[in-house]
Amino acid sequence: MTEQGTSSRPGGRSARVRASVHRAVTELVAETGYGNFTVGEVATRAGVADSSIYRRWGTLEALTTDVALTWLTTNSPIPDTGSLDTDLRAYATGVARDVSGPDGLAVLRLIIALSQSGEAGARARDQFLTERRSQLQHMLDRANARGEHPPQALDVLDHILAPIYLRTLFGMGTVSSSDIDALVDRVLATPPGPPAK
Amino acid sequence: MTEQGTSSRPGGRSARVRASVHRAVTELVAETGYGNFTVGEVATRAGVADSSIYRRWGTLEALTTDVALTWLTTNSPIPDTGSLDTDLRAYATGVARDVSGPDGLAVLRLIIALSQSGEAGARARDQFLTERRSQLQHMLDRANARGEHPPQALDVLDHILAPIYLRTLFGMGTVSSSDIDALVDRVLATPPGPPAK
Repeated sequence: MTEQGTSSRPGGRSARVRASVHRAVTELVAETGYGNFTVGEVATRAGVADSSIYRRWGTLEALTTDVALTWLTTNSPIPDTGSLDTDLRAYATGVARDVSGPDGLAVLRLIIALSQSGEAGARARDQFLTERRSQLQHMLDRANARGEHPPQALDVLDHILAPIYLRTLFGMGTVSSSDIDALVDRVLATPPGPPAK
Repeated sequence: MTEQGTSSRPGGRSARVRASVHRAVTELVAETGYGNFTVGEVATRAGVADSSIYRRWGTLEALTTDVALTWLTTNSPIPDTGSLDTDLRAYATGVARDVSGPDGLAVLRLIIALSQSGEAGARARDQFLTERRSQLQHMLDRANARGEHPPQALDVLDHILAPIYLRTLFGMGTVSSSDIDALVDRVLATPPGPPAK
């Protein structure tokens, strides 16, 4: 199989390859977990050549993070509700919902697997986190543009995302909506540092 | 091998068995990771019968958490410096130090492995966390007894432990002493909720 005839038109061959490769990765992650399958297995299941995957994604790690990021961006978009307060509550509610499912720790497991996968893993992990953090930063930038006083993105990671992840990881039960309100209130009550960029 | 002659005197047979079993688990974790060895392999390496391990610890999960908790309690004791402020800074510094080493995510990996190990795993995880949290609670109780106004143990987990773990997991670089000061200052500046028990 060659890449001749590859098109980036939506619905074209390129989009079909991407969709079938993504589907294959999603299935393999569900069946075996991150780090337990090869590019060859993805290619066979997706019905494409190994070389098509290497050419497009470079490494298995980059492919896996592309799938995870696409999933998150589609299923857990960063909110845009028109106010900082409701954006932060919607964001925290989304994180709590994502982690409460049976595969709620999938993103954490991916990040740990990447952290143990050498240089390519570290690069893929950093790309994943940079992209997701940039989505969050856009939410804070919109608040800033409205004249609100948003926290730093790092404060949101430290004091909203991290507690929800840790409590889930520690099996401390569902993070309730009043827990979420308390975390958001706390971030909003703390005087912001230097203005968010 | 029978348990006849077992003694709980320090330095007695019981203590020797415990030490050799702990050493075997520590070696196997380093060689293969959590969840990748059996009670039989521990027993062989420690030179004891499988039944001795089952009788004493019940499950592999309970044994593994006993080893991890003993390690933490010995190598990262909860501070007792005489003031809440310095206790919290010493605690946060210890957490940051523990996670910055080459095997810094070992406790997180253990907790994730236990979370995926059914009922016995969940019980062992909960016992581990309850014991460690109780050590932390003693630190806060001492502050309370001195007339200080300590945060809740949950606030320390949410806003000191969680950010340090998450930043490490996300490869965001070393948590510096000024990062630690900022996290502790923030917890101390927030008005406490209901008094710590």
